[in-house]
Amino acid sequence: MSSTAGQVIRCKAAVAWESGKPLSIEQVEVAPPQKNEVRIKILFTSLCHTDVYFWDAKGQNPLFPRILGHEAGGIVESVGEGVTDIKPDDHVLPIFTGECKECVHCLSEESNMCDLLRINTDRGAMLHDGKSRFSINGKPIYHFLGTSTFSEYTVVHVGQVAKINPNAPLDKVCVLSCGMSTGFGATVNVAKPKKGQSVAIFGLGAVGLAAAEGARVSGASRIIGVDLNPSRFELAKKFGVTEFVNPKDHKKPVQEVIAEMTGGGVDRSVECTGSVQAMISAFECVHDGWGVAVLVGVPNKNDAFKTHPVNLLNERTLKGTFFGNYKPRTDIPAVVERYMNKELELDKFITHSVPFSEINKAFDLMLAGEGLRCVIRMGA
Amino acid sequence: MSSTAGQVIRCKAAVAWESGKPLSIEQVEVAPPQKNEVRIKILFTSLCHTDVYFWDAKGQNPLFPRILGHEAGGIVESVGEGVTDIKPDDHVLPIFTGECKECVHCLSEESNMCDLLRINTDRGAMLHDGKSRFSINGKPIYHFLGTSTFSEYTVVHVGQVAKINPNAPLDKVCVLSCGMSTGFGATVNVAKPKKGQSVAIFGLGAVGLAAAEGARVSGASRIIGVDLNPSRFELAKKFGVTEFVNPKDHKKPVQEVIAEMTGGGVDRSVECTGSVQAMISAFECVHDGWGVAVLVGVPNKNDAFKTHPVNLLNERTLKGTFFGNYKPRTDIPAVVERYMNKELELDKFITHSVPFSEINKAFDLMLAGEGLRCVIRMGA
Repeated sequence: MSSTAGQVIRCKAAVAWESGKPLSIEQVEVAPPQKNEVRIKILFTSLCHTDVYFWDAKGQNPLFPRILGHEAGGIVESVGEGVTDIKPDDHVLPIFTGECKECVHCLSEESNMCDLLRINTDRGAMLHDGKSRFSINGKPIYHFLGTSTFSEYTVVHVGQVAKINPNAPLDKVCVLSCGMSTGFGATVNVAKPKKGQSVAIFGLGAVGLAAAEGARVSGASRIIGVDLNPSRFELAKKFGVTEFVNPKDHKKPVQEVIAEMTGGGVDRSVECTGSVQAMISAFECVHDGWGVAVLVGVPNKNDAFKTHPVNLLNERTLKGTFFGNYKPRTDIPAVVERYMNKELELDKFITHSVPFSEINKAFDLMLAGEGLRCVIRMGA
Repeated sequence: MSSTAGQVIRCKAAVAWESGKPLSIEQVEVAPPQKNEVRIKILFTSLCHTDVYFWDAKGQNPLFPRILGHEAGGIVESVGEGVTDIKPDDHVLPIFTGECKECVHCLSEESNMCDLLRINTDRGAMLHDGKSRFSINGKPIYHFLGTSTFSEYTVVHVGQVAKINPNAPLDKVCVLSCGMSTGFGATVNVAKPKKGQSVAIFGLGAVGLAAAEGARVSGASRIIGVDLNPSRFELAKKFGVTEFVNPKDHKKPVQEVIAEMTGGGVDRSVECTGSVQAMISAFECVHDGWGVAVLVGVPNKNDAFKTHPVNLLNERTLKGTFFGNYKPRTDIPAVVERYMNKELELDKFITHSVPFSEINKAFDLMLAGEGLRCVIRMGA
C-alpha cells in the first residue's frame, strides 16, 4: 500500500486555462480514486493531434480550465473500491476509450465501442459522481477523455486502464495508448492484408505511418503512400512505404493513378487523413472482387461520403475502425508484447522528447508539422 | 457420342424480335459448339427480372432479334474442342457469368468476377469467334448473357457451365442459376449472420426472399422484412421472415424504426431492391460496432450512395456482392447439394409453371408482380 493511498496528492500538472494559450504548469490537488477508479503516477506522456484539437477548441465546446493528455504510460499509485484486476505498482497505459466488459459491445467479439466508456470528448468529470478529481485551491479543473495525462498523477476509470508487461519501457510504449495502436490496428485487425498483397496508405502522419507499419508487419509486397506533402515521403521510407503518390502531381483522380500502378487497384487501403475526398479515393482505389478499404481519419461534421453503388457491387468492402478495433484492456497488452518481441517497431515514431517543464514545445512542434511523436518526460 | 454431335440442330426457340413485344416460338438452327463451348439441351428454364429488363430494353442498347433466358437446367448434348471437364449427358446449369479458372479473379479465393467471362449484357455473340450459334434461314439471332436458355438447345462457353448432381430435379434447381443463388449467397457468403443474430432484408421479391432463406438457414433469430408493398408480407412468412416494416407506415426513416425495434440496429442487412435510398437505409440500420450491410440490388446509372463517414467509423461494414459471391463452376454444385440435403428449400420459390408454348404468360405474371418464379417446361 502506497503511503499516499486515500490521501489527496499535490503534484504538478499542465493546465490549459483557455483555448489556444500555452499550458501553464501548476500545483494541483489530485483526489483519491473513487469506486472503480485508479490513480496513476504518469511517467511519460506524448502529444497527439486530438490534444491540440481540443486545446485549440475551434470546432468543439470549449471546456476550460482543463488538463489535456491521453497518450501515456505510468505506474498505479492506488486503486478505489471495487477495483480487483489492477493493483498498486502495476505498469499501465491509460486509454482514451474504455472497456466495461459488461455491455453488448464488450460482450461482442467484434466491437470495441463500449457503451459505458466509449470516448466522450465533452465530459470533463468522472463518471462515478460527475465530479473532477483535480482542483487548484478548491476550484475544480476539468478532465479530458477520462485520462488527463498532462499531470504527474491522474485518476482514470479502471475500464480505461490497460495493464501491461512491467518490463516494457514506458517512454516508448506510451505511444500505444492512442495513435500508433489506431493506425497499426486499422491494418492488422481490419484491412488484414495477406502476405504479398499491396496496400495504399492515405496520409503519412503518425497514424498513417503506424498503418504502414501494420502493412510491413503483415508482409505486404507494396506499400503505396499518398500525401499532399512531399516532405513526408523521405521519412515514410523508414516505415516500409515503397512508393509515393502525391495527388497534386496528377491531373486524373488519385484512385485512377493507383489503379494504373497496380493493374486494377490495390488489395487494401487505409485512410488516415479525415478528408472525405481522400476517403472516396481510398475506397475507389481498391481492386474489384476483393479490395478492402478502411477508414480511420475523423471527418468534419457535415461531410458526406459518396460513391456509385456499382463500386460496392463489384465486391469491394468499405469499413471504418475506431482505435484500430482494439479492446483497450483485453488487446493492448498483447500489442505491447509485439513491441517487446521486436515485431512492431515503435522507436522510429518518437522523433522528439522534452521535459515536462517544456511541454509547450511539444505543441509548437506539432503545430509546425515537425516529427511524429514528442514524448514528454514527467519526472524531468 | 450423341448422334447430333457436330451437326446443326433444328429446334424451337422463343425469339424476341423487338423490345417489349411478345416472344415468338420459332424453328431455329443451333450450330455445333466450337472451342471451349458446350451445347446443352435445356429441359427447364425460369424467368428472371433481368430477362424482362433486357426484353423491355428501356435503359440498354437494344439488341434484337435475341434469344433471352439465363436461369435454366439441362443436359449436355455435345462439347467442343478443348472441353475436358464436361461431357455429353452431364446435368448442368448454365450461368450468366463465368469462371475461366485462370484470371486473377478466378485465382483469388475471394472474387467471382472473372475477367474473361464476367457478365456482359451487351455481347450478343460467342467469345471464340464473335459469331452467333443461332440462326433462322441463315440470319443470325443474338445470344443473351452467353446462355440464351429460351431455346430447346443452346451453346454456352464451358466457363459458364456448372456440372451438378444428376439426381437433382432440374425443374427445381434451375432457379439456382441466378436469382436464388444471388440472394442466398449474399446472406450466407457475405453478410454471414451468426446463429441467433438479427437480419433485415430490404425488398421481398424472389432475390430478397432467397436472402431471407439464407438467414433462416444460418439460424438468424429475427428476420425483418422491409418492403413498400404490404401484399408481400404474407408470402414472406413462408421464408422465415418474422417481422415486417413498411417504410410508408412511418414518418421517420426506416433505419431509425429498425434501430428502435432492435436496440440499436440489426446485426446484418441485405439490400435487394436496387433503390439507392434503400441501400442507404440498409447500411444505416445495422448496429454500430459489428453491423454488416450487403448490397445486392443493381441501381440506376446515376445514383450515388451517400452517408456520413461517422456511420462507417463507428465500425459498420458495407459490402457489395455479385451472384452471391459464388464462383459458378466451383461453388454452384455444392449449393445444389444443400437443396438435395433438404437444408435449402427451393420449391417454395416456384409459384408457377407453364409449357414452353406459353412462355409469354411467364412474362405477364412477372409484369403483374405475381408470384416469385415461373418455370417454363421446354419439353411440354
